Amino acid sequence: MSVIKFSIPEIIFGSGSISYVGLCARQLGAEKVFIVSDSGLEKAGWVSRLIDLFERDHLHWSYYSDITSNPRDYQIHHGGERYLSEDADVIVALGGGSPMDAAKGIAIIASNGGQIRDYEGANRIQKPLPPMLFIPSTAGSGSDISQFAIITDVKRHIKMSIISRTLVPNISIIDPYLLTTKGEELIISSAIDALCHAIESYLSKIASPFTESQSLLAIRLIFQHLKPAVETKTLKHLCQLSIASTAAAMAFSNASLGAVHALAHALGGMFDTMHGLVHPVLLPHVLRFNLPSCPEKISQIGEIFMAPQLGSTYDTALSCIRAIEKFFDSFNINQKLSEIVKDDSKLETLCKMAYNDACLLTNPRHATWEDLLMICKEAW
Amino acid sequence: MSVIKFSIPEIIFGSGSISYVGLCARQLGAEKVFIVSDSGLEKAGWVSRLIDLFERDHLHWSYYSDITSNPRDYQIHHGGERYLSEDADVIVALGGGSPMDAAKGIAIIASNGGQIRDYEGANRIQKPLPPMLFIPSTAGSGSDISQFAIITDVKRHIKMSIISRTLVPNISIIDPYLLTTKGEELIISSAIDALCHAIESYLSKIASPFTESQSLLAIRLIFQHLKPAVETKTLKHLCQLSIASTAAAMAFSNASLGAVHALAHALGGMFDTMHGLVHPVLLPHVLRFNLPSCPEKISQIGEIFMAPQLGSTYDTALSCIRAIEKFFDSFNINQKLSEIVKDDSKLETLCKMAYNDACLLTNPRHATWEDLLMICKEAW
Repeated sequence: MSVIKFSIPEIIFGSGSISYVGLCARQLGAEKVFIVSDSGLEKAGWVSRLIDLFERDHLHWSYYSDITSNPRDYQIHHGGERYLSEDADVIVALGGGSPMDAAKGIAIIASNGGQIRDYEGANRIQKPLPPMLFIPSTAGSGSDISQFAIITDVKRHIKMSIISRTLVPNISIIDPYLLTTKGEELIISSAIDALCHAIESYLSKIASPFTESQSLLAIRLIFQHLKPAVETKTLKHLCQLSIASTAAAMAFSNASLGAVHALAHALGGMFDTMHGLVHPVLLPHVLRFNLPSCPEKISQIGEIFMAPQLGSTYDTALSCIRAIEKFFDSFNINQKLSEIVKDDSKLETLCKMAYNDACLLTNPRHATWEDLLMICKEAW
Repeated sequence: MSVIKFSIPEIIFGSGSISYVGLCARQLGAEKVFIVSDSGLEKAGWVSRLIDLFERDHLHWSYYSDITSNPRDYQIHHGGERYLSEDADVIVALGGGSPMDAAKGIAIIASNGGQIRDYEGANRIQKPLPPMLFIPSTAGSGSDISQFAIITDVKRHIKMSIISRTLVPNISIIDPYLLTTKGEELIISSAIDALCHAIESYLSKIASPFTESQSLLAIRLIFQHLKPAVETKTLKHLCQLSIASTAAAMAFSNASLGAVHALAHALGGMFDTMHGLVHPVLLPHVLRFNLPSCPEKISQIGEIFMAPQLGSTYDTALSCIRAIEKFFDSFNINQKLSEIVKDDSKLETLCKMAYNDACLLTNPRHATWEDLLMICKEAW
């Protein structure tokens, strides 16, 4: 066994836990917090709630919201300047993956300078970052737990993976009550993103017992609670999805991911595709490609998705992939890549780009760009 | 669900990982490290190995070893003075629970002043501690992961539990190769300490999905690997015990413990009993006492220790307790409390002391001091 590194933030989890935000910011030495969020959270009332909480605790604040989904490099550079000019001392992100990844990018630029593309890849951040306190509003991206930030380079049309232990926030406040203001589509796509984190990290070449136990916990909870969460929208089930997303993030942050995420990043960079949409389309085909390298592990996932099977490990693993497809079919989501990407002429460029994504390094089976192209054609 | 807090150090795990110690100390800002260890580690050659590693990385160091097992308050006070007079900046503990708990105590006194008894109980440390980098040499205490420090108050003859999130070390380097220099008895008693952490945290009133998955992982690994680890002393099995101890510590640090540990702390304070010896004697009797409050959870533990059972949940839980006793019987360890404590005249005082231990608060069934006395008599 090679050396395993396992790092997660301090976690405060539970309905109503957002009220701890002032106390946590003070623990991190805050006098003036720099809030990064977006218009969706503003409309749902969460930004003003957060500002009220900081004011109640006599903390100064500054608010930055000039970000989009799939946050862009220039938005990060502007944010970095604003952070410095505001003389803030703690970065607080409130939102889904986009505001959280943007906040990480802002933290990098504020303390390390340069352009965000200078930090693409693994372990390229030299100087310590400002303290980070994150409040996720979806149960999916896991950016509040992970050492990943995904930022779009607009000139090169790619989503850069920036990976560093210093990108793990200091504190993550996970309040499942925030999920009650989210629509069905977002709940489903976020949960499937988390499911994909859990499955890809479980099969990763660098999975460890610490990450595997979290991956399996996440898979089990999403399989059990996604349908009732969508149907009832009760806090009980949303809370379980939130636990699942957090566990999946503990796993993928420390075991990394695989070909699904490598392709999803390339798709997001080229077509600005919403991250959560592409997973159900790609996952079954990537699993069939990976099957020869990890039949035992895929069959172990099958123990969650299916009743016990009598056949061989390989057959059980194949049935598991079918069971996952059936699970996806039960939700109203895209089934084919052609429903997301209208034009197949760029698939080759896309797969060459995905081949260079850091996530492909830990895919259980070595994949060439031609293999990725075959996967995309099967998913078409 | 109430608010869950989950906090662990950054973990570097693997055979040979001790060689990262200089890099990690530098990450924490070290120029001069304050090493806390003991004569056992000196004899095994680990202290000089550690010093060599620091010197290779051009770090200054100071060494403190005036500690015993069940570290005493005055040893902590001397250590705090030494840390300050040496002008050190990072505390490095190398050893089992005693040097690690002593290092935590020294960190408290160095930055907060006063007497160590001022900090007894939960959340009484106000000022931030010096950075802490821990290297455990046993697979049991979990002090390298946990927010607990246990220090003996010599005047009152009690082991004080000091509990605070700030006692979680910054980095834990867990190198299972260190276990190869340990004797059979220590491997067994440490693993049973870890098993008891895992079981008591699993049954704790404040267990959460994040801690439960780690508890079950630890129980499974210890059940599978303790016997082969003792018989073969191969790195393969020792490594699994080390993973188990780490997972159990992630669980108990965040879910706390129960009556076994409350009694073990009282026994250690009154009779200087070795911590690991008392668990196998007490655990089955505490489990029988707890059974009415958590039959489902005890029967779930049974799924690890036994073949599937046909009876009721309650019957399965009872069989599980018997299976745990049988597991203990297969090792050459004490079976009765009377083999450890020669004189039963102080049992009442002991149980009144255990009743005030912080660990009893999370025991799944409320226990009075009379209940604890009954448990001790059954274990006698």
